[in-house]
Amino acid sequence: MKCQDYSLSRKTERDNLNLNPLQRGGVLPPESREALYEFSDGYSVCDYCSGRLDEIPRPSIHGFLEDMADFIKVDHARTVHGAREGKFAVMHAVCRPGDTIVVDGNAHYTSHLAAERNGLNIVEVPSSGEPEYRIDPVAYQEVLDNLYDRGEEVSLVLLTHVDGDYGNLTDAQAVGKIAHDAGIPFLLNCAYSMGRMPIDAKGWNVDFVVGSGHKSMAASGPIGVLGVQEEWADMVLKRSDRHHVKELEMLGCTSRGAPVATLMASLPHIIDRVSKWDFEIEKTLYFVSEMEKISGVRQIGVRPKEHDLVRFETPFFHSIADKHPRKGFYLYEELKRRNIVGIKRGQTQWFKCSVYGFSQEQVHYIAHSFAEIASKFKDMAD
Amino acid sequence: MKCQDYSLSRKTERDNLNLNPLQRGGVLPPESREALYEFSDGYSVCDYCSGRLDEIPRPSIHGFLEDMADFIKVDHARTVHGAREGKFAVMHAVCRPGDTIVVDGNAHYTSHLAAERNGLNIVEVPSSGEPEYRIDPVAYQEVLDNLYDRGEEVSLVLLTHVDGDYGNLTDAQAVGKIAHDAGIPFLLNCAYSMGRMPIDAKGWNVDFVVGSGHKSMAASGPIGVLGVQEEWADMVLKRSDRHHVKELEMLGCTSRGAPVATLMASLPHIIDRVSKWDFEIEKTLYFVSEMEKISGVRQIGVRPKEHDLVRFETPFFHSIADKHPRKGFYLYEELKRRNIVGIKRGQTQWFKCSVYGFSQEQVHYIAHSFAEIASKFKDMAD
Repeated sequence: MKCQDYSLSRKTERDNLNLNPLQRGGVLPPESREALYEFSDGYSVCDYCSGRLDEIPRPSIHGFLEDMADFIKVDHARTVHGAREGKFAVMHAVCRPGDTIVVDGNAHYTSHLAAERNGLNIVEVPSSGEPEYRIDPVAYQEVLDNLYDRGEEVSLVLLTHVDGDYGNLTDAQAVGKIAHDAGIPFLLNCAYSMGRMPIDAKGWNVDFVVGSGHKSMAASGPIGVLGVQEEWADMVLKRSDRHHVKELEMLGCTSRGAPVATLMASLPHIIDRVSKWDFEIEKTLYFVSEMEKISGVRQIGVRPKEHDLVRFETPFFHSIADKHPRKGFYLYEELKRRNIVGIKRGQTQWFKCSVYGFSQEQVHYIAHSFAEIASKFKDMAD
Repeated sequence: MKCQDYSLSRKTERDNLNLNPLQRGGVLPPESREALYEFSDGYSVCDYCSGRLDEIPRPSIHGFLEDMADFIKVDHARTVHGAREGKFAVMHAVCRPGDTIVVDGNAHYTSHLAAERNGLNIVEVPSSGEPEYRIDPVAYQEVLDNLYDRGEEVSLVLLTHVDGDYGNLTDAQAVGKIAHDAGIPFLLNCAYSMGRMPIDAKGWNVDFVVGSGHKSMAASGPIGVLGVQEEWADMVLKRSDRHHVKELEMLGCTSRGAPVATLMASLPHIIDRVSKWDFEIEKTLYFVSEMEKISGVRQIGVRPKEHDLVRFETPFFHSIADKHPRKGFYLYEELKRRNIVGIKRGQTQWFKCSVYGFSQEQVHYIAHSFAEIASKFKDMAD
């Protein structure tokens, strides 16, 4: 049997400035590349396991999880395969099929899938719509009050801390207080925040928190973090009836391989970069202000930005596509010629991007490149 | 905040001859180390995704899954996080809480956990017990007949193709026929076989098959393979009601990162090594025969061996531990002095090991080392 050619190279994305927001937070620091080399083989972290992944002493997954719990302010931390698998586990442990959960209108599709796979009904807290798409904590209160009035029980409140469409940051503490006042447990999805900005699960009334190693914690995918407060540990970290040391929702062990080694190696790097979050926001604000100098370019979502993920409406670039011989591909190709990638081929009407982790000089170069392309083809625009 | 020292080195296990059966099949070939380097960052395989991991064209996860389906003879192949996650997904899709499933008495603990997490009742097909622990397909027939007579419906039959305690290979085709004659779907757990020996899911009446990339397919963990026949695709690969392209049991996407790149790079290597399975068995038979020359050493499980995982009873080595100044640690230490690792520190009464993937010369050296240690301390034995 002969295999197809799988094109197992990523040179373009590695060697160029990649603006894809999905890729900005997952770049490994050198020490994590070393860890990847050390732990590349199969079940590499399991050499010294005596039955529990989270208790392995060498490499010290145990010590790492203690540090991680400290870092995000939870009583218990576990690694899972990603934020979605963490959300599924929490819902599976604390809800029953047919239950109702309340979720923000900007929730990631995986929150919907985790609920659907668990047979749960979703009631949405609407965003403010165009152009801000803001999630107002007060809207959570209204939705919960409505459900209460109708006698409908809610078994979980979920908030997307920072959403992946607009990069809006929502006040987790306020939503957490509303959920707690209503006696409902609170799950915070930090896929786009944990590892980029500080997380204070205890301070924000968070019962369960999930993060994504590959999205925001400088780790090889797939890996995520699940944080659980003591009150819920018996449910979410319930042990098997038959195999008493094994945690049921983890199916015994989760991250049995290389990604957890990279996440461990990256933790000091993450702790350091989270302390510089303000600097990232400054760069993003500068980038937005430069981009908006281009005719018709407008940042969508809450203003001013509180996160590096930015969505732009770009009607000017779109109007060029009509007349350009390369049609909608021109933008991708012009950017790539300038060593910039991560905007999808053919996309010109709007796009999401991020300059997270780039130097001030690189951000300047990127903004300048967009301006240069706009100027080059201005005669083709409407 | 200062992190603990996580001991992120695996030099001992990488540089020595590692007999741990869990680690033998997951060693990466050089081309997969290269793939790991290329795809080390975060969501690295998702650059060219348009919504479905299994359809990504670059790297060609799509082409890879076609080849994988050919290789194991299934209609549909997906990557999952490991065999256990594949079993959970199948059970979740085809069973309802309270259902009964039939499982072999040598099943891996994760089969029990996948069932327990799904709220299923397990009825076991007992093994023959000491010393062979053989699973006889006829015993499946008896268990199913008994349940039928009691009017109890069975929603799934699971067989552990090769178990992890004794390395016994069970006739999947025979169990598959029994399940199919009873009209019950059949799940084959190939964590210890897929990637080591040929799998013919179609020919063996297998409806669902799971394999483990880190255990037996020369891939970085965590990754597994789930194979599904067409008849069950609608259930197991069901799409979300809300997000129509996303597969529910996969939570949209599974292996979003480095391990899938290593599994892809390893497939040609795996196809090649599976064709040399007979040679691996020959080495194992030689190893067993050499080991059994040592006083009292006895291979447990079905004889002659049909798989590289071997369990030995070693009362001779155990009796030395009583008098040895290093107690039970002497065996580990003597082996390590000879660059052999993978037998747990302190274990002398019995152990599991494997010489899978070692050269004939290395196998000879390993067997000779055990004999040398036995001879060195023979005066301390009872």
